[in-house]
Amino acid sequence: MHKPFLRTVFGVLALSLASAASAQVKPEDQIKFRQAGYSFMSWNMGKIKANLEGEYNAQQVQAAANAIAGIAGSGMGALYGPGTEKDIGSLKTRVKPEFFQQMPNVGKLATDFNAAAANLAKVAAGGDKAAVQQAFSDTGATCKACHDKYRME
Amino acid sequence: MHKPFLRTVFGVLALSLASAASAQVKPEDQIKFRQAGYSFMSWNMGKIKANLEGEYNAQQVQAAANAIAGIAGSGMGALYGPGTEKDIGSLKTRVKPEFFQQMPNVGKLATDFNAAAANLAKVAAGGDKAAVQQAFSDTGATCKACHDKYRME
Repeated sequence: MHKPFLRTVFGVLALSLASAASAQVKPEDQIKFRQAGYSFMSWNMGKIKANLEGEYNAQQVQAAANAIAGIAGSGMGALYGPGTEKDIGSLKTRVKPEFFQQMPNVGKLATDFNAAAANLAKVAAGGDKAAVQQAFSDTGATCKACHDKYRME
Repeated sequence: MHKPFLRTVFGVLALSLASAASAQVKPEDQIKFRQAGYSFMSWNMGKIKANLEGEYNAQQVQAAANAIAGIAGSGMGALYGPGTEKDIGSLKTRVKPEFFQQMPNVGKLATDFNAAAANLAKVAAGGDKAAVQQAFSDTGATCKACHDKYRME
């Protein structure tokens, strides 16, 4: 084998081990944390929706959008490790098996979602309700794209 | 009664109603959302800790700190509304009754926590590990200050 190839292999291994060392989160905790992230985002999406439909509080919308963007950008992919494809005891997951078999597409959907959430936070900081309405719809569409394909009913 | 007083009363009422309209979150959902927020923050605190103790990935730390700051600043006080002081059926809460009786002190602890989390995100963006270590310890201390006083074992 060529040395450059070996170096690459060891480099990738080292990287994996480093990630593993920095994570070390049990599968059941990975499921709990990812569900917590989505749950907290849903609360904040709900607040933005309520602001768009009622009295608009720019500060509340900005805070909610920052929470969503922060969670979306936190590297939740690490919470879909081995052993998290199925329910663990009484802990249920709604992720479909296809999710783990179609990683390139999942990666694209995740990237779309992150970009939309980051844009929502940026737009919310500007305080323009109509622009927030658009950015909010765009974000919701990226949530739905993944739910439709990879979340059980 | 003086008109200014009445205006103030009605103003406060209107404000409360507006908040209520923008929230309308059931007590059990308030408990679930607040627990989700703390759970997701704990995952991210764990990641920062692992980075400080092992190989330091500035990007991962920054992302984790942004998630914590976003959640901390999202107005979680709204998730401690009436009916959330106690367990609701099988949904357990560890908040002590004193929490709801000592709002000025709770407000101070929450402000300290928000400020520390915002500072952690700011410092993490700079990428200096020693500075992050300090900001991380400061944030952890503000978590602990509230847990020690208002969280059941």
